[in-house]
Amino acid sequence: MPDAVRIACCQLVPDIDHPVASAAQARAALADAIRAGAQIVVLPELCTSGYAFSSAAEARAVAEPASGPLLRSWAQEAAHTGAVVIGGFCELADDGRVFNSAALVDASGVRAVYRKLHLWDREPRWFSPGEDPAPVVPTRFGKIGIGVCYDIEFPELTRGLALGGAQLIALPANWPREPPPPGRPMPALQLLAQETASISRVYVAACDRGGSERGLAFQGASVIAAPDGAILSAAEPAMADSETTAQRLLADCDLTTALDKRTGQAGL
Amino acid sequence: MPDAVRIACCQLVPDIDHPVASAAQARAALADAIRAGAQIVVLPELCTSGYAFSSAAEARAVAEPASGPLLRSWAQEAAHTGAVVIGGFCELADDGRVFNSAALVDASGVRAVYRKLHLWDREPRWFSPGEDPAPVVPTRFGKIGIGVCYDIEFPELTRGLALGGAQLIALPANWPREPPPPGRPMPALQLLAQETASISRVYVAACDRGGSERGLAFQGASVIAAPDGAILSAAEPAMADSETTAQRLLADCDLTTALDKRTGQAGL
Repeated sequence: MPDAVRIACCQLVPDIDHPVASAAQARAALADAIRAGAQIVVLPELCTSGYAFSSAAEARAVAEPASGPLLRSWAQEAAHTGAVVIGGFCELADDGRVFNSAALVDASGVRAVYRKLHLWDREPRWFSPGEDPAPVVPTRFGKIGIGVCYDIEFPELTRGLALGGAQLIALPANWPREPPPPGRPMPALQLLAQETASISRVYVAACDRGGSERGLAFQGASVIAAPDGAILSAAEPAMADSETTAQRLLADCDLTTALDKRTGQAGL
Repeated sequence: MPDAVRIACCQLVPDIDHPVASAAQARAALADAIRAGAQIVVLPELCTSGYAFSSAAEARAVAEPASGPLLRSWAQEAAHTGAVVIGGFCELADDGRVFNSAALVDASGVRAVYRKLHLWDREPRWFSPGEDPAPVVPTRFGKIGIGVCYDIEFPELTRGLALGGAQLIALPANWPREPPPPGRPMPALQLLAQETASISRVYVAACDRGGSERGLAFQGASVIAAPDGAILSAAEPAMADSETTAQRLLADCDLTTALDKRTGQAGL
């Protein structure tokens, strides 16, 4: 695969009570992935702050501006090899609002910030909903669309990214653990990634988190899916009482295949 | 499941060279399914005419009007128990055009005719494309949306049916055989049915055909999927050189669950 780009999902286990350590863990995983040849690295949702806040004040206390040192540190890692990083962070906006955001960062700095549109469960207690559409960002490897976690349950959003030219949808996630129902072969996030990929003929790299936090267990179901619906790499998710851990997925992907939307033979 | 409705998919093997026999086969399978307690019966696409026409004239020669004896015979079978039938047929329109259509029929007669919007492969040689949106039809069992085969690759159509209130999407199909790529657990039609069901929280009953016709082998991958993405019943599809045969899927479904679009816990 001569034109392949190596995509990594760095599934992490942030510690909500130690955001500085969580940020260091994310940066180390990013650096490791780049050393392993990854050119596009996806990190989880809220990967430095943790997820299960107990108050809006707690979320605000760990929120940081997109122009701050966190994303600058990702850009510094990316600059070593010209990599592209997509990761979730707790964003403090200029106007004081707090968002559940994901940034796309490369050597030049912050290329895009997406503020999660579909807030799930308790998230509206801590976050303002985004007001702008999910972006498609041209990069040296191709066009990358960005969503966050629950967004993937809305085909309007993912189809919109594909219609906007996205060859890869990068999806930082914090997916709570739920066993798949009988008759369904895989956990929700992996099924949704597979179906999003196959329906719109794009790559999907969903980077989940593992572990649990204040009674909320996460699925740890990171996955990289191809435009034909093939699962290229998938974390073994938590199914019962086991806890998922940090791990890294890698897949070499020819993003040009996502430009070919034909199905079946050419018969006419 | 006290409010369950029994859904059947009658996977058939029509014979393009013997349309009268194919129609008899479809009617017999319909009658058998109703005797087995089915209240909603889905038949394949073009289930009486066959699929692999060699000319537009051949398709036209077997096309029949929606007001003709074919759909009347389905209504007669449905009338025995108050069942609902959705099946595909080669339609001769009043204006002389030929469509790849699906009808919804009950004891009162033809309730809806849907003319396939997304013609696949060589189909535009024989068929005019439909001009009206895919319908959602209120029935005594709930609202049923109709698509045909390749339509399921377009989430705009299936999402539209769900937004229109469909609790079940009935999809007559003639899906050509293609092995799933490595890493994908199921054939395309079953994956698409599962993902359509789970994304829009509806039931999907996709009734495929089996066998092969003039060198075109069919997948025989009929499937009934639930709103949580569970596969309730699935035909064992043809994977290599084997031919699939006629068979019937049954599943008892509580269509009211498709009205509940909530995911996750209620956390707010």
